[in-house]
Amino acid sequence: MKDSFRLAVAGVGNNVAALLQGIAFYRALRLSDPSAALPGVRVETVGGLSVMNVHFVAALDVAQAKVGRDLAEAVMATPNNFPELVPALPPTGVVVESGMMNGDPDEIAAVSERLVSTGTEVLLYSLPTGRQRLAESYARAALDAGAAFVNCTPEKVARDDDLLKCFSDENLPLIGDDLASHLGATVVHRALLDLVTQRGLSLEGSYQVNLGGNEDFRNLRSHGSTKRESKLNAMRDSGIDVERVEVVPSGGHIGYIQDRKFCHINIESRGWGGTPAIIDLTLKVQDSSNAAGVIIDLVRIAAAGKRRGLGGALVASFPQLKSPPGGHRYTEDDLRVAYAELGP
Amino acid sequence: MKDSFRLAVAGVGNNVAALLQGIAFYRALRLSDPSAALPGVRVETVGGLSVMNVHFVAALDVAQAKVGRDLAEAVMATPNNFPELVPALPPTGVVVESGMMNGDPDEIAAVSERLVSTGTEVLLYSLPTGRQRLAESYARAALDAGAAFVNCTPEKVARDDDLLKCFSDENLPLIGDDLASHLGATVVHRALLDLVTQRGLSLEGSYQVNLGGNEDFRNLRSHGSTKRESKLNAMRDSGIDVERVEVVPSGGHIGYIQDRKFCHINIESRGWGGTPAIIDLTLKVQDSSNAAGVIIDLVRIAAAGKRRGLGGALVASFPQLKSPPGGHRYTEDDLRVAYAELGP
Amino acid sequence: MKDSFRLAVAGVGNNVAALLQGIAFYRALRLSDPSAALPGVRVETVGGLSVMNVHFVAALDVAQAKVGRDLAEAVMATPNNFPELVPALPPTGVVVESGMMNGDPDEIAAVSERLVSTGTEVLLYSLPTGRQRLAESYARAALDAGAAFVNCTPEKVARDDDLLKCFSDENLPLIGDDLASHLGATVVHRALLDLVTQRGLSLEGSYQVNLGGNEDFRNLRSHGSTKRESKLNAMRDSGIDVERVEVVPSGGHIGYIQDRKFCHINIESRGWGGTPAIIDLTLKVQDSSNAAGVIIDLVRIAAAGKRRGLGGALVASFPQLKSPPGGHRYTEDDLRVAYAELGP
Amino acid sequence: MKDSFRLAVAGVGNNVAALLQGIAFYRALRLSDPSAALPGVRVETVGGLSVMNVHFVAALDVAQAKVGRDLAEAVMATPNNFPELVPALPPTGVVVESGMMNGDPDEIAAVSERLVSTGTEVLLYSLPTGRQRLAESYARAALDAGAAFVNCTPEKVARDDDLLKCFSDENLPLIGDDLASHLGATVVHRALLDLVTQRGLSLEGSYQVNLGGNEDFRNLRSHGSTKRESKLNAMRDSGIDVERVEVVPSGGHIGYIQDRKFCHINIESRGWGGTPAIIDLTLKVQDSSNAAGVIIDLVRIAAAGKRRGLGGALVASFPQLKSPPGGHRYTEDDLRVAYAELGP
Repeated sequence: MKDSFRLAVAGVGNNVAALLQGIAFYRALRLSDPSAALPGVRVETVGGLSVMNVHFVAALDVAQAKVGRDLAEAVMATPNNFPELVPALPPTGVVVESGMMNGDPDEIAAVSERLVSTGTEVLLYSLPTGRQRLAESYARAALDAGAAFVNCTPEKVARDDDLLKCFSDENLPLIGDDLASHLGATVVHRALLDLVTQRGLSLEGSYQVNLGGNEDFRNLRSHGSTKRESKLNAMRDSGIDVERVEVVPSGGHIGYIQDRKFCHINIESRGWGGTPAIIDLTLKVQDSSNAAGVIIDLVRIAAAGKRRGLGGALVASFPQLKSPPGGHRYTEDDLRVAYAELGP
Repeated sequence: MKDSFRLAVAGVGNNVAALLQGIAFYRALRLSDPSAALPGVRVETVGGLSVMNVHFVAALDVAQAKVGRDLAEAVMATPNNFPELVPALPPTGVVVESGMMNGDPDEIAAVSERLVSTGTEVLLYSLPTGRQRLAESYARAALDAGAAFVNCTPEKVARDDDLLKCFSDENLPLIGDDLASHLGATVVHRALLDLVTQRGLSLEGSYQVNLGGNEDFRNLRSHGSTKRESKLNAMRDSGIDVERVEVVPSGGHIGYIQDRKFCHINIESRGWGGTPAIIDLTLKVQDSSNAAGVIIDLVRIAAAGKRRGLGGALVASFPQLKSPPGGHRYTEDDLRVAYAELGP
Repeated sequence: MKDSFRLAVAGVGNNVAALLQGIAFYRALRLSDPSAALPGVRVETVGGLSVMNVHFVAALDVAQAKVGRDLAEAVMATPNNFPELVPALPPTGVVVESGMMNGDPDEIAAVSERLVSTGTEVLLYSLPTGRQRLAESYARAALDAGAAFVNCTPEKVARDDDLLKCFSDENLPLIGDDLASHLGATVVHRALLDLVTQRGLSLEGSYQVNLGGNEDFRNLRSHGSTKRESKLNAMRDSGIDVERVEVVPSGGHIGYIQDRKFCHINIESRGWGGTPAIIDLTLKVQDSSNAAGVIIDLVRIAAAGKRRGLGGALVASFPQLKSPPGGHRYTEDDLRVAYAELGP
Repeated sequence: MKDSFRLAVAGVGNNVAALLQGIAFYRALRLSDPSAALPGVRVETVGGLSVMNVHFVAALDVAQAKVGRDLAEAVMATPNNFPELVPALPPTGVVVESGMMNGDPDEIAAVSERLVSTGTEVLLYSLPTGRQRLAESYARAALDAGAAFVNCTPEKVARDDDLLKCFSDENLPLIGDDLASHLGATVVHRALLDLVTQRGLSLEGSYQVNLGGNEDFRNLRSHGSTKRESKLNAMRDSGIDVERVEVVPSGGHIGYIQDRKFCHINIESRGWGGTPAIIDLTLKVQDSSNAAGVIIDLVRIAAAGKRRGLGGALVASFPQLKSPPGGHRYTEDDLRVAYAELGP
C-alpha cells in the first residue's frame, strides 16, 4: 500500500461503512479488470491519490457493539444498515477504540497521542449531528497531533476563525463544514426550480419530502427544523422564491428502506396564459454512499494538502461542502488553481 | 391599442390559438386587477412592448374549416384542441384568408401585397413542420413587404445565409430557426443529466418518452427520427454521453391528453461503491402554451428591432431558439447589450 | 324543489363546502344540458332522490367567521379552502347559527328545537375529529327531533348499542361511523397490495405518505397515530402482512396544495428468482370532494330510509363507511335487497 | 433428484433462462437455509412437486449461438439478456439440439422420438410469438410421445378443439394458451380502473405505455396492434369503458433496460363536483421472471396431471393463462377441487 495515506476515523457509522466497503468494491473491480472504469468516482486521482490509496490506521467510537471489534466487523453492527457491497470483507487489522465522551482536555490528549502513535495524516470526523463540543475537541486533537481534519457535520469547526488560524499556522488543512451530498435531494430540487424560474414560468408551489430507514430519519422526523432551514437557505441563495417552497427533511422513518433515501419532489408552475406546468420526481439513492462519494474527495484533498504544506481552508474542497468558511465564493479558475496546487 | 405592433400569422394552429387566448387571458386579468402579476410571462416588456401590445392584422391558412372565419373562431376549429382560457372570445375583426399552397412567385406577391395593405410589422410563420419551400416563400413575402419574420419551425430560414443577408440589408429582423420550448422535456432532461454528470456519478442509462394528443404526436409516432436526433444533439453539446440516452419523441398519440404533453424521464446512475441512484420524473405541460410563451418574446423582439432599424439576426432571441444562425455563442453580457439595443 | 329532502348540517367545514358547491355544479350542468352525465356521481338516484334533491334548512357552527353569515358565504370563509366550482354561489337563505360548545342538555334541547322548527329530516354531523361528546349530543338532538343522523367522523355513535337501539325504536336511520373516501389512499394502496399478494409475489416493504394543505394535515402531522392504526387495520382485514407496511397519515402540511391531498405509495416486492418488482404511485385528489362524494350517498340513504320507516343501521350505507356497526359483513345480495327497500 | 419430473423445452430464450436460473437460485437459498421462504413463489408445492423438482432432459432451438452448447451456457447467449441470478451456473448436462424449422411431419417425428428417448413428461413451448404452425407441430410431437404440453404463447393450441380432444383421449394435459404475467402491466392497470369505476368516479381517460430492452420490445414497437387489442379485451371483460383507455404495448426499445419492463400508467378521473382525481404509476419488473413465475406453476400442473391420468384442459392452470379454452369461467370452489385432483 505504498502511496496510501493514513486515515483515522472518529465515529463508525454508515458513512464509514460506505467508505470502507466502497474502497473494497473498487479494489475487487480493478483486480478482475485493471482498466475498469470506477462507477461513481468523480475524479480518478486527487494530488496523485486514488480512491484505493486509503489506509485506515485508527477508529474511534463509543458504542458497545463496535468498540473492541475489527473495523470491518464494526461497520456492519446495528444500527448501521449499509448494504454489503463486497461479501465477507476481510479484517482491516484496525480495532475500534473508545472515543471521546465529553471532549475534556484529558480526552483530547489521549486521542492526540493515539493519532501520533498511528502516524495519522488525516482525521475524519463523522459523529451524529449536534455534538459541537466533541467536534471541536477532535479537531484540537488532530491539530495537536499534526494531522489534517475533515468535518462531515454541520457543527461549526472550519468556520471557527480561531481554529482555522491554528490549522493555518501549522500548515495543516482544516476541511469543513457539512458535506454536500453526492446527488442529494436539495441539489436536484434546486436545479429544477432554477430551470422553472430561468425559463420565465411562475412558481405556484413546490415541496420536497424525504423518507429513509436509517437513524437520521428517526431523529429528523421530530427535530427537522434546522435541516429544513439549511435546505431552504441553499435555495434562497440561488434566487428561488422560497416562500412557495416546502421542505420536509423526514416525512417518516420507513424501516425497509434501510440506508436508502427516497425523495418525492412536486413542482407546480404556470406558463403562458396561466396554463399549468407540473413536475413530479422521485429520487432513490443510497444515503451513505451519497456521503462517502464526497468524503473520498475531501480526505484525499486533506492528505494531498498536508503533504504539500497547505494549511487552513482549501478551496478545492468547497464545492463538496455545504458551509465552507466564507461561503461559496470562487470561480472555475480558482478551482483549477486549487487542484493544481495539490500536485499532479 | 396605441403602442401595439401589427402582427400577421401564417398558419392558424394550436400555437396561434394559445397566443390569442393567452393575450385575452392577461387582458382580463389586468382589467380585474391592474397590478396583477402575469403568470407565465418571462419579461414584462421587451423594447417597451408588453404581452398585451399585440394587434393581429392578418391571418393565413389553407384549411377549409378556418378560411373565411374570424380568427377567434378559427383557432377553436378541429383539429385544434387548445383549451378555452377565456370563455367566449370576442371576434378579432380579422378574417382568415387563403395562404400559400406551393410557394410560387404569384403566391409570394399576393401575400406580400396583403402584408403591405394591412401594415404588417411582423409575420409569424407557424405551419406544420416539414414545408421548407413554404417557409422560404413566406419569408420572401415578408421581406418584399418590409416586415420582420419569425420562423417557429425547424425549416432552414434564418440559417440560410442569402436570406439573412437580404433581411440585414433591409434593416429587417429575421428571427429563427425553431422554437425552444418554454419548459420542454429536453431542457428538463438535460438539466438532470448535467447534474448527474457534474456531481461525478456514472450514467448507466436514461430515457425520455413523450406522449400527447395533438396532431404532432400522431405524425411523430412514425416519423420521429429527425426530432430524436435534434433532441440528442441538444444534449451532446452539453457534454452528456448520449450513447446511454434514448429519446422517444412520441411514445404514442393519446387522445384524451388533447393539447397537453406528458413526458416520462428515467435516469439510472451509479454513485459511490457502484450503488444505484435513480431518478423518475413526469412532466405535464400544455404543449402549445409551451410554444406561445416563447413566441410572445420572439415577436416582440422582432417588432422592437424593426422599429429601431436592427436588421438580420438579433442575439436577444437566441436563448429562445433551438437553432439560431451560428449556434448558441453568446455571453450574459451579449444578451444584456442586445436587450438594451431594443430600447427601454 | 319538490321531492327534495330537508338537511341540516352540524359543522360548516370543507366537506359541507364541497357538498354545497358540488350540488350547485350539477344543477348548472343539467341546466345547460338536461341529459348531461353527472361526473363523479356513483348512483343517479337513491330511493328516488337525486343528488340535486338536497334542501339545506339549517347550519350550525361555532366559528366567528361563519356564524351569522349565509351558508353560501360561510363555506368560503378561512380556514376553509375548497376551490370555487361555481363562481358567485347565490345565497342559500340559510344563516349559520351557533352550534353546541360542550353538548350539555340545554344545548341538546336548543338544537333539537331548531331541527323541529326547520322540519329537518336528516342531520349531517361533520365536525373536526375528536369530539366524542359533541357527536353524541348532536345525535341525541336529532333523535329527540325525529330526524335521521349521519356521522362522518370516527367518533363512536352508530357503534354505541344504546344509541342505535333508540334510533331503531323510533324508526329513524342512524348512519355511521366514519366515512370511507370516494377514492382514498388506503383503498388504492390496499388494492395494489392485494394484487401483489394474490399473484404470489413476496412483499418486501411498502409505504404510503400523505400530504395536504388543509387543517387536517396540520393536526395529523403530530397526532396521526390513531389514523395510522385505522388505515393499517383496514389492510390487515384483507390478509396483507402489515408488518411490512408503513403508513404516514401526514408527511407534512403543504400550504399550496390547499384542500387537495397528494399521496405517494411505494411497493417493493420480489418475483420469480427473487427479482424485484417495484411499484411507485402518486394519487392526487380533492380531499373534501372525496368526502362529499360519499356524504351525498349517506344523506340520501338516511332520508329515503326515514321516509320508509327504516330505523337503526342501514346496510345500504355500509360500503361507504369505515366502521359500520358490526363491521363489514354483508354480501352483494344483501346490498341489492337493502337498496330495494329504500324504494324505487 | 427423485420426485423430479422430466421437462423438455422448445425455444431457449429469456423465459427458459429465467426458469433455469430461478430454480438454481432457490436451490442455493435452501442449501444455505433449509427453512428459508422462497420469495416470488406462489405455491410451495403443486401435486407434491416443489419448484426445485424440475429435471431438464432436452432443449430445442434453431439459433447457431445456442445449438450444441450446454443449456446453462445457451441461456446466456445473445440476444438473451436475463441477468445472472446465480454466478457461474454449473452445466446441466443437457445440450441444445436443433429444433423444428417448418413443422413438417419429418420434423414432428424426429422431435417426438427425441422426447420418447429422453423420457420427457412435459414439453414447454416458448418460441417467439407468431409461429402458429410450429406451435401445433410441437404439440403433435408431444402427443405422439405421450408427453403433456404447455403453450406459453398466444398461438391457438389448447383452444383448437381437435388437438384438445386428442390430448384428452390420451389422458395427457394440454395447457394454454398464452401466459398471464406474474405481475403484469395489464393486471395492475385493470385493478386500478376497476377501483375507479366501482367507487363511482368518472373515467376521463387512461393510458398504459410499456418500455423494454429485450427483443420483444423491438418487434412490438411496429407490430403491437394485436397485443394492444388483447390487453384492451382483458379490460373490456371486466366492464371498463375501454373507449377511454389507450394501451401502447411498446413505447420504444430502450437498450439499457435489458430484460426489465417499465410501464407508465396514467388515470384521469373526476370525482364529486367534477373535481379531478389523478393517478400516475410506474411499474418496474423483470420481464422474463414475470413469465417464469407463472411457467413454474403450469409445468408442475402439467406433470402432476399427467401422473394422475388427467387429460385435456386442467382448470387449475386457468388463472395463470390469458386465453384458456372456453375462457375464464370457474369459481373459487372449482379451483380448490382442481388443485385437490392434482394430489397432495
